[in-house]
Amino acid sequence: MDRAGQDEIKRRFGARMRELRNARDLTQEDLAFAASLDRSYLGAIERGEKNVSLVNIERIAGALGVGAGELFTT
Amino acid sequence: MDRAGQDEIKRRFGARMRELRNARDLTQEDLAFAASLDRSYLGAIERGEKNVSLVNIERIAGALGVGAGELFTT
Repeated sequence: MDRAGQDEIKRRFGARMRELRNARDLTQEDLAFAASLDRSYLGAIERGEKNVSLVNIERIAGALGVGAGELFTT
Repeated sequence: MDRAGQDEIKRRFGARMRELRNARDLTQEDLAFAASLDRSYLGAIERGEKNVSLVNIERIAGALGVGAGELFTT
């Protein structure tokens, strides 16, 4: 997979995470607190800049109240 | 989340990946080739030893012919 494909994966994940966060009326700060992650790190994920790891994907899903699979649906 | 929780996440992911691979009658070598990843790396994921990244999760899902969300269902 080339760089463009990897960037697209990260962008799509970040957009879906932002969508779920906004649907719950949570700020990045709220979500950061609930997930025990940095707000700036969550911002970078939402901008498609991070190749998030499995454990952090599950942390974020838990804080959003969804299964991790929900972060991969469109 | 404590270490045990993180280990459990990695174990669950690896077990699900192995289940999907076996259901398709693929060897680790077959899957490694299709995903452009090392066979030994896939073995470590299946043993629950790796905190796999988003991009590699998508590579593996693509090689298994499923959406990435399928790797998180039970």
